Amino acid sequence: MYNELKVVFFLIGTVKYLLQTPIFMKIYVEGDVAYLPFSKKIEKMGFGVKRGGKIILHPIEVLYLILNRGYEVHGKNTTDVFKWCLEKIENFMPFYCVYEDLRKRGYYVNILEDVLVGKHVYYPVEEVRNVNVCDIVKFENLVLAVVDEECEITYYKVEEIYPKGKHKEEEFKVRGILLGNSVFTEGFLHERYFYGSLKGNMTILSILESAYLMEKGMLEVYEGEKRVSLDKIMNIGRSKDPKFDRRFEVYKDLKEKGFVVKTGLKFGSDFRLYEYISEELPHSKYLVNIFDRPIPAFEIVRAVRLAQSVRKTLLFACKGNKYIAVERVKV
Amino acid sequence: MYNELKVVFFLIGTVKYLLQTPIFMKIYVEGDVAYLPFSKKIEKMGFGVKRGGKIILHPIEVLYLILNRGYEVHGKNTTDVFKWCLEKIENFMPFYCVYEDLRKRGYYVNILEDVLVGKHVYYPVEEVRNVNVCDIVKFENLVLAVVDEECEITYYKVEEIYPKGKHKEEEFKVRGILLGNSVFTEGFLHERYFYGSLKGNMTILSILESAYLMEKGMLEVYEGEKRVSLDKIMNIGRSKDPKFDRRFEVYKDLKEKGFVVKTGLKFGSDFRLYEYISEELPHSKYLVNIFDRPIPAFEIVRAVRLAQSVRKTLLFACKGNKYIAVERVKV
Repeated sequence: MYNELKVVFFLIGTVKYLLQTPIFMKIYVEGDVAYLPFSKKIEKMGFGVKRGGKIILHPIEVLYLILNRGYEVHGKNTTDVFKWCLEKIENFMPFYCVYEDLRKRGYYVNILEDVLVGKHVYYPVEEVRNVNVCDIVKFENLVLAVVDEECEITYYKVEEIYPKGKHKEEEFKVRGILLGNSVFTEGFLHERYFYGSLKGNMTILSILESAYLMEKGMLEVYEGEKRVSLDKIMNIGRSKDPKFDRRFEVYKDLKEKGFVVKTGLKFGSDFRLYEYISEELPHSKYLVNIFDRPIPAFEIVRAVRLAQSVRKTLLFACKGNKYIAVERVKV
Repeated sequence: MYNELKVVFFLIGTVKYLLQTPIFMKIYVEGDVAYLPFSKKIEKMGFGVKRGGKIILHPIEVLYLILNRGYEVHGKNTTDVFKWCLEKIENFMPFYCVYEDLRKRGYYVNILEDVLVGKHVYYPVEEVRNVNVCDIVKFENLVLAVVDEECEITYYKVEEIYPKGKHKEEEFKVRGILLGNSVFTEGFLHERYFYGSLKGNMTILSILESAYLMEKGMLEVYEGEKRVSLDKIMNIGRSKDPKFDRRFEVYKDLKEKGFVVKTGLKFGSDFRLYEYISEELPHSKYLVNIFDRPIPAFEIVRAVRLAQSVRKTLLFACKGNKYIAVERVKV
């Protein structure tokens, strides 16, 4: 009985082996082109492009077949193949890492110029490379694939969203006093609308908030007896923060979209947003980073990690009041 | 019965009120000095310094007594007092915020030049201010109190530690091939010692790792037939990263201290450290940031938040192989 079972297992093993082993295990390279002799099976597995009796392979596919499917390149060792790949394709490693990862998860993936196309459009980028978050959303269904030094990958869905809050403010008219870099005014601004911070029965407004309320005509600021102009307030803001004008622009847009807008500094962001105010202030839902220039991919990784660790969604505020949400996803 | 209870409660209320109300509720200001007429009670509460028949108050104490204990300043309103405080003390608001927070938690706090002294030595700093992490540990038992725009405070224990790993490496001697910005070598370097990353049966080393192993005499690197010098490898490293030499220095020190050292980029750090390697690689315990110049307090907040969200301790690597651990604490 035991011996019979052994024979059965041996037969099953052999059949499995034969099924797994491709008929042609050799890849050929002629000049710059790598190919396999055509076979239906290879074609079905989704590798390469059929040209005549050959299947033309991309260098990424060549390396994948060697490292993961037991193929060999005729007349070359693995190091030669690596060298050939690195020479042929700029930015080869991050592309390869993402391709391999997706393939190993069982996805079919096509290789385009800048991207890999499968279930999503994958945009591989080394973590030290700069990314223009506002620009890459031109691809629909985009997934940013950030590849680290060790070929580990994290995936991020990047998409434009249209955030909307439910916060409403009545018109009011108050006076404030400029003291140092703050404006002191009535307590209800904090209690009712969550402006500034409360000390005793006074709201201490930031320069940004003060500028906003002054422009709205809801706040008059005095220094002693003298009325302070919006210009002076803006200049105080600019002297503390060179990005003040851009911050002001985004702040105003977010207020108009119905959010309670507070500093997001401790989360490494420009703003945090609340959709509304209730008895217990709800947790803020979004963090907003003002995007003004391409940033290294690892900074995106950090910012998203930070936002998600406090259960918030990270938005990048692009020029033209465009908002890009970046969320880590499993693919 | 109900009426009798009411009377009892009324009496309890009155007694409580009388006990809470200080006898002298007026603070006097003469020139630059604020004081209260001496009373044992005030002295016991730990405010001010006794001088003759007066208790001299610090501006921070003055504001605290006004905003939280119902005191008034003779002939001044609260705005005047704020103004007086802001003029007298540079950096007044963060100091005040921390003082108030600690007092409200029931701690006695003394005000020194740069710090508040109570159960710990508290170092208040606005989140936009630069902090020299390597320098402030000159205070023992130091707690950094980072104050945001809204007067919210987070506390961080900052202390020098002496990290030690348990990782050991046998001597080996291998050859590697320089391809692009990586060195390809034998698989066991990754499998046994967790160097680089594994692709197929090859370890792909970073330039930093390659430089380390070359300096140790354990790795010879070739480009085609030609031997590559350590200098050349160092220069490749420098061209990618201007901080390469300092990173190399810290990397070597951490290797010598018995750690497995890997990139910490995705956590926003220079390195992540493992104490040893086992079958399942344990979670790394430390993140290391190389400190080369004072950084804004909010960046410390971010880095610690990130580290703690992945259950690691953040270390700053200071000149002279000194390591400073920064951990968020409740006070």
